[in-house]
Amino acid sequence: MSDTPLPPAVCVLGMGLIGGSLMRAAAPHVPVFGWSPGRDTRAAAAADGFTVAEGLESALRRATETDALVVLAAPVTALPSLLRAIDETAPATRLTDVAGVKSPVAVEVAALAPRARYIGSHPMTGTEHSGWAAGSAGLFADRTWVTTLDEDSDADLWAPIAGLALTIGSRVVPCEADAHDDAAARISHLPHLMAAALAQVGAMGGPLALSLAAGSFADGTRVAATRPELVRAMCESNAEHLIEAMDEALAQLGVARGSLASSGSLAKITSQGYEARTALARRFDDLEPFTLTGGDLVDQLLSVGAVGGYVTGVSGAGGRLSVEAMYPRDE
Amino acid sequence: MSDTPLPPAVCVLGMGLIGGSLMRAAAPHVPVFGWSPGRDTRAAAAADGFTVAEGLESALRRATETDALVVLAAPVTALPSLLRAIDETAPATRLTDVAGVKSPVAVEVAALAPRARYIGSHPMTGTEHSGWAAGSAGLFADRTWVTTLDEDSDADLWAPIAGLALTIGSRVVPCEADAHDDAAARISHLPHLMAAALAQVGAMGGPLALSLAAGSFADGTRVAATRPELVRAMCESNAEHLIEAMDEALAQLGVARGSLASSGSLAKITSQGYEARTALARRFDDLEPFTLTGGDLVDQLLSVGAVGGYVTGVSGAGGRLSVEAMYPRDE
Repeated sequence: MSDTPLPPAVCVLGMGLIGGSLMRAAAPHVPVFGWSPGRDTRAAAAADGFTVAEGLESALRRATETDALVVLAAPVTALPSLLRAIDETAPATRLTDVAGVKSPVAVEVAALAPRARYIGSHPMTGTEHSGWAAGSAGLFADRTWVTTLDEDSDADLWAPIAGLALTIGSRVVPCEADAHDDAAARISHLPHLMAAALAQVGAMGGPLALSLAAGSFADGTRVAATRPELVRAMCESNAEHLIEAMDEALAQLGVARGSLASSGSLAKITSQGYEARTALARRFDDLEPFTLTGGDLVDQLLSVGAVGGYVTGVSGAGGRLSVEAMYPRDE
Repeated sequence: MSDTPLPPAVCVLGMGLIGGSLMRAAAPHVPVFGWSPGRDTRAAAAADGFTVAEGLESALRRATETDALVVLAAPVTALPSLLRAIDETAPATRLTDVAGVKSPVAVEVAALAPRARYIGSHPMTGTEHSGWAAGSAGLFADRTWVTTLDEDSDADLWAPIAGLALTIGSRVVPCEADAHDDAAARISHLPHLMAAALAQVGAMGGPLALSLAAGSFADGTRVAATRPELVRAMCESNAEHLIEAMDEALAQLGVARGSLASSGSLAKITSQGYEARTALARRFDDLEPFTLTGGDLVDQLLSVGAVGGYVTGVSGAGGRLSVEAMYPRDE
C-alpha cells in the first residue's frame, strides 16, 4: 500500500470521540490539525502534542493553504454553521463528514457549501464514551468506513479519502447516500427502537419479569441503554427510511401474532428469522479478491458496495487509479 | 447450609443437556440415578460412572423405593407418556420438571399423574449445545431456578427441591406458574420473535445492509440463530401470554412509528426504553437479606418472587422451615 493516495493534510473540525480518534490514527501518516469549539478540548489535544487551531477561520485558512481534507466531525446540529464558514473561508476545500445519516448531510452541503469537493463518510465505529479523552488511534481498525458516491462523483477525489480510511485499518464500502441511509435504518436505527420496545414490555411485567431476565433479554435490549438524545439524533434524521423499516418490522410481528392466535404456529417467523440471521454470519464467506480499473470506476465502486463487497486497497492517481476489492464469487 | 433439606434421592428422566448436568451437579450431594430412552445416552452416562436404569419402569420402581425426587428432563412433547408411566408405577412420587413453560405442565400433571407430589421447576440456564456430552456440573451456578407454587402447595414438599437448587449454586425464585409464564413471554419468548423480525428486516435490505451490520444488529438478532424447532416449542406452548406481550410490543412500535411520521419525534420510546433498560441493570441493587418463618410460608415465598426477590437458603423441616431470602428494602 506504499502508493496509497492520501490527502495532503487532514483538518478535523470537532475533536470528540470520532474526530479525536481520527487525528490520533491519521497523524503517523499525514499532517493533521484540528479545531473544536471547546477551549478545554483544544487544550487537551494540544497538551497531547496535536496541532490545534485557535479559531475556526484560521483552521479553514490553513486547510486551503495545504489542500487539506476537511473532516466535519461535529454533531449534526452543528454542521450548518460549519458549512457556512467553509463556504466563506475555504469554499473549494476537499470535504467529508462522519455523520451516521448521509442524504441529509449531502443536501446541506449542496445548499450551504456548494463549491466544496465533498464525498460523504460514515466510519461505523464508536464506544459508549465521548470526548477527546475517550479517543484512540485503534478505533477504526477492522471496522467499516462507508464512502458515499453518486454517478457524478470524481474517483480522484474519493481515492485519498478511501486511502486514509484504509491506512487506518478500515474496510471501505462505497455506496450511494440513499442506499446507506436505507441500510442504516435497518441495521442500526431500527435495532435501537426494537430494543427500547422490548425493554418496556419486559419492565411492564414488573419485578418478577426483570428478575428472571437472562441472556436473550439482555442481548435484545442492550442498545436501549444508549443515551436517548443520541438515539433520537440519529433516528429522527433518517425518518423516511426508518418508517419503512418500522413498517416491515410491524408487518413481520403482526403476521406472526396472527398466525400464533389463529393456528398456534410460529413456523414462518422462526424459520425465516433463522435463515436471515445465519446469512449475516456468512456474509463475507464467498467474497474473493478482484481488481477494478478503467474509466467507469465510480460505477464499479458502487456495484462493489451494492453486492456486499468492500474495498481493501487503492493505488495510483490522476485517472489511473487501481482498486483492490473483495467481491462475491458468483456475481 | 449443612441442614439444607435435600430429597432422599434424585431420579432424572431424560439425560440431555439439563438432565445430564443436573445428575453431575447433584451427585456429590445426594444419591442420583437416571434413565433416557436413548441407548447411546444411557451407555455414555453409565460409562461416566452414573447409575442408569435399564428401563423407565425400573427407574420409577426405584424412585418409589427410595422416595426419590423424579425430575422430568425430557422434551415437553414426551411428558404425557412419562406422566402416564408415573401414574402407573410411582403414582405418589415427589415430582418436578424443568420445562420453560409452567402452567401447561401443571395442567398435564393434574390430568395424567394427579397423585404425584408435584412442584414445577424452571432452571433458567442452558447452552447452544444439547445431549449428555454437552452437560456440566457448573450449569446451574449463579443462575435462576424458578419453583412454582400456589396457595395449596406444601412448603415441606417445596423445601428439598429448593434445597437441591441452592446446593448446586442457583438463586431460587418462587412464583405462581401463570406469573412465570407471563414473565417468560416477556423476557424470553418475545425476544426470540423480535430478533427474528429484526433479522428479516435487515436481510430485506440486501447484501449492502448485511455488510454494514455491526454491534446493535448483531446483539439484537443473536437469538434468532437458535434452532427454529426449539423456539417454536417454547413459544407456541405459551401462546396466550406471548400474544399479550406481542400486542404490547406492536403497540410500542406502532405508537413510535406514528409519532415519527407525524411530529418527527422519538422522544417517548427512547426515553422510556432507556428507563426500562437501566432498571434491568439495577434490579438486584436494593435487595437485602430477610428471614421468612411461620405458618404462611407459601404466601411469603410467593411474595418474594412477586417483588423481584429470591431465596438464598432453606433449613429445617416438618413445619419448622426457615428460609433466607433477598428482599427489596422498601417493601
